[in-house]
Amino acid sequence: MRHLLGVEDLSREEIVRILETAEAMREISEREIKRVPTLRGKTVLNMFLEPSTRTRVSFEIAAKRLSADSINLSASGSSLVKAEGLKDMARNLDAMNPDVLVVRHKVAGVPQMLAAHIGVPVINAGDGAHEHPTQGLLDVFTVQRVLGSVEGRVVAIVGDIAHSRVARSGIYSFTKLGAEVRVAGPPTMIPPGIEILGVKACLSMEEALDAADVVMMLRIQRERMERPLFPSVREYSQRYGLNRRKLALAKPEAIVLHPGPINRGVEIADDVADGEPSRILDQVTNGVAVRMAVLYLITGVES
Amino acid sequence: MRHLLGVEDLSREEIVRILETAEAMREISEREIKRVPTLRGKTVLNMFLEPSTRTRVSFEIAAKRLSADSINLSASGSSLVKAEGLKDMARNLDAMNPDVLVVRHKVAGVPQMLAAHIGVPVINAGDGAHEHPTQGLLDVFTVQRVLGSVEGRVVAIVGDIAHSRVARSGIYSFTKLGAEVRVAGPPTMIPPGIEILGVKACLSMEEALDAADVVMMLRIQRERMERPLFPSVREYSQRYGLNRRKLALAKPEAIVLHPGPINRGVEIADDVADGEPSRILDQVTNGVAVRMAVLYLITGVES
Amino acid sequence: MRHLLGVEDLSREEIVRILETAEAMREISEREIKRVPTLRGKTVLNMFLEPSTRTRVSFEIAAKRLSADSINLSASGSSLVKAEGLKDMARNLDAMNPDVLVVRHKVAGVPQMLAAHIGVPVINAGDGAHEHPTQGLLDVFTVQRVLGSVEGRVVAIVGDIAHSRVARSGIYSFTKLGAEVRVAGPPTMIPPGIEILGVKACLSMEEALDAADVVMMLRIQRERMERPLFPSVREYSQRYGLNRRKLALAKPEAIVLHPGPINRGVEIADDVADGEPSRILDQVTNGVAVRMAVLYLITGVES
Repeated sequence: MRHLLGVEDLSREEIVRILETAEAMREISEREIKRVPTLRGKTVLNMFLEPSTRTRVSFEIAAKRLSADSINLSASGSSLVKAEGLKDMARNLDAMNPDVLVVRHKVAGVPQMLAAHIGVPVINAGDGAHEHPTQGLLDVFTVQRVLGSVEGRVVAIVGDIAHSRVARSGIYSFTKLGAEVRVAGPPTMIPPGIEILGVKACLSMEEALDAADVVMMLRIQRERMERPLFPSVREYSQRYGLNRRKLALAKPEAIVLHPGPINRGVEIADDVADGEPSRILDQVTNGVAVRMAVLYLITGVES
Repeated sequence: MRHLLGVEDLSREEIVRILETAEAMREISEREIKRVPTLRGKTVLNMFLEPSTRTRVSFEIAAKRLSADSINLSASGSSLVKAEGLKDMARNLDAMNPDVLVVRHKVAGVPQMLAAHIGVPVINAGDGAHEHPTQGLLDVFTVQRVLGSVEGRVVAIVGDIAHSRVARSGIYSFTKLGAEVRVAGPPTMIPPGIEILGVKACLSMEEALDAADVVMMLRIQRERMERPLFPSVREYSQRYGLNRRKLALAKPEAIVLHPGPINRGVEIADDVADGEPSRILDQVTNGVAVRMAVLYLITGVES
Repeated sequence: MRHLLGVEDLSREEIVRILETAEAMREISEREIKRVPTLRGKTVLNMFLEPSTRTRVSFEIAAKRLSADSINLSASGSSLVKAEGLKDMARNLDAMNPDVLVVRHKVAGVPQMLAAHIGVPVINAGDGAHEHPTQGLLDVFTVQRVLGSVEGRVVAIVGDIAHSRVARSGIYSFTKLGAEVRVAGPPTMIPPGIEILGVKACLSMEEALDAADVVMMLRIQRERMERPLFPSVREYSQRYGLNRRKLALAKPEAIVLHPGPINRGVEIADDVADGEPSRILDQVTNGVAVRMAVLYLITGVES
C-alpha cells in the first residue's frame, strides 16, 4: 500500500490484510506497556485542517504506540485555505522527510490532490463528504470481531447517506467483504443512483432493519447541509432515529454502530447507545488498532 | 491511589507518600539526561478545556521525563460544552486505553463526574473554584523542602479565598499536615463558615501575617467574579497586596508563595515577588516533581 | 554557543561550525530510522507566539530526530501580550528545567530580552523585523551544498528589505562567509544606510541580478507594512518579481532561494519557483538539518 485515500481503491485482499494486521495491533493496547518499537524513527505528520479531536487523538495514539514521532498541524494560517497554498505547504512538509502525512480537510479530494503532488504517502483521515477510510475499516473490523465474519451479513446504514463520508467508506468496506448493504434515510438524503455502489435503497428505516445483523446509524451533521433537508429534528428522530422498538426488527444478536459523536435522542436513543447491542466504544478501541495497522503497512514495510 | 480529584479526599499518609515520591522525582529534573523509563508505554491524555499554559506544560514535562506518551486535547468543539458531550468524549477517550486522563475544566465537579463514568484514572488539574490538588501538594512540598517541616507552621493565605481552587487545595494540604492556616481578604471574598475547614478567618491581612511562617498570596482573577467584589484595584492592593512592610510582620525567615501568574503591583509588589523570601519559582520546579509523583503513583504501580 | 539570538552575533568560525554540524545532521533525515539518541532526556520548549506552521514543525522534527522531548506553547493567554507577563512566563518555564527555549515573537528583541532574564539558552525563531537566524544559516548552508562554496559568490536579495528578518539574517550570514551581497526593492523598502551592513543597494532588480550566483526573493508580507509601500501588486510584480527573463541576467548556474511561503505570480513566477534553478525545497530540507545542528550545539555539548 502506498497511500490510503479511500476504501474504494482497496481490493478485498488489501482489506483482509489490514484487518489481520489490526488484530495483531489490538493486543498491544491491552498490554501493561503499550508500546512496540516497530516504527521507531518514523515521522507521522497529522495535518487536521478541519476541527477534530477524536480522530486526531486516535491517530496520535496509534503512532506513539508504534514508537513513531507524531507531529500535529492544525489550520492556523490563511495560506492553507486555497488549494495552491495547501499544495505548497504539503511540498514543504514533504521536504522535511516525513514518512506519512495524515490529512483531514473539509474539501473532498484534497488528500488525493496532495498525494499527486508530493512523494510522501498520504492517509485520508476524512475529506468532505467523500471518504473516511479508516472509519470504514474499523467498522468492518468491529463486525468481524463481534460476529465472527462480515460475508453474507446484512448491514443497514441509516441517516444522511448523501453527505456522509462515513457512509461511503462503510459501503465500500462492507460490500467488498461480501456483506449485503441497505441504506435508509429521508429521500433528500439518499443520493439518486446509490444502487450503483451495490447497495439497496430502502423506502423506510423499518425495511432496512428487517432481519439485519448490523445497524449503523449516522450522525446528523447540520453544518454540512446547505439547506434544511428535513422538517424538524423531532420528525427526523421519529422516522429515522434508532430506539429499542425499531431495533427489535433486526436479528436478536444484531449489533449497533455509530461513528460518533452521537446526538443522543436524535439519531439514537440513550438506552440503545448505552445498551448491550451497542458496539460504539468497541469501534473507538478498534479505531486505534486499525490506524496502527495502516501506519505500519504504509510506513513500516516499505524496504 | 486510583484518582486524584481533590486533596480533600487524601489522607495524611497519602499526602506524605506523594511528597516522598516527589522528593525522589525532583532529582531527575536536575540530571544531564532528564528522563527515566518508569512510565514507558503509558499514555497520558492532557485534556485542558480551560486555557492554560503553565500547568499543561508542567504535566507534559512530567509525563515525558517519565517516558510516558503525552497527548494534548484542548477545547476545540462545541461537543465539549455540554456535560453530555463531555461524558461521551471521555468515554471515547477511555476506549482508546489511556492510562490516565488529566482534566482541567472551568466547571467545578467535572473531573469527579468523569471519574464516575469512565474506567481510566482521572487527575484534576483545576476545576472551577473547587480544587487544584497538584497545586496544593506542590505548596506543601515547597514549604517542607525550604523550612524542613509543615507541622505547626503558621500559613497565611491572602486574597480571594471564595473563588480560589488554589486556596481550597492549599487549605486541605496544609491543615492535613498539621499547619495552622489563617485566611484574609475582602469580606466579600471570604466565604461564610470557612472555619469549618479548620482555618481561622482574620479581620485584616496584618492579623493573618502576624508571626507567620508562610505567606501565600492568591492571584486576583477578575474573570471569575460575577460582579466587582472590591472597590478598586488600587484599594485592593493597599489593603491586601503584599509589600516589604507587611511582610515584616511575619517571621524573619518567612517564605512567600504565589500560584502564578502574578499581577505585579496588585497582589504582590515587585521587590517581594523577586526578593529572597519568594519561593514562587521553586513552586514551579516542585510542580513538575509533584506531578511526576502523582502520575507515577496513579499509573505506575497499579499491577 | 550559549544562545542563538541573531547571526549578527556569530563569528565566521561559529557559522562554519554550525554548517559542518548540519552536514552531519542532514544524513540522519535520509535514513530508514531517522532518529539518533544524541539529545535523549533533553527538553526543548517551542514557544511560538506568532502563528507559524513550517518553522515550528521544522524545529519539532529536528528535536525529535535527536530524541529530545519537544513541547509546544502557542499564544493562548493575554498574559503573554505584555513584556512583563512574557518575562514572568519565561522565568516560570525556566524553573521547569528545560534545556532550550525556541522563541518566535512578532516584536523585535523579545528573544534577547528573555535571554537576559532567564538561565535557559534561547534560540530566536524569528522576532519581528529583526532576525531569523536559522533561516539565514539554512540559506548559506543551501548555497554551500549546491555551489560548493559561499565565499566570493554574488548574492542578490530582492524585495522588502526593510521589514524582513529573513533579509537581515541572510545579509549577516552571506557577508560573514565572504559573499558579495546586493539588495534591491522599491525605494520605500530599502532602509537608508543599509550599506553599513556591507551590502550594495542597487537601483534596479536588473542591476542586482547581473551575473549573480544566488537570487534570493523575499515574501511580500502585507501584514507587516503599516501603509501601502507600493502602488499595486501588479506593478510590484512587474518591477520586482522574478521571472525567467530576469533570471537570465544572473549566471547560467545561478540558484533561486525563497524563505516561503511563496506568493506565486507576485514575487516569483510559477515556472521559476518550480524550475530547475529553484532550491526552495532544498532550503526546507536543510532547515531541519541546521536546526538539528543548532539544538545539538546549544544543548548537547555543554558538559
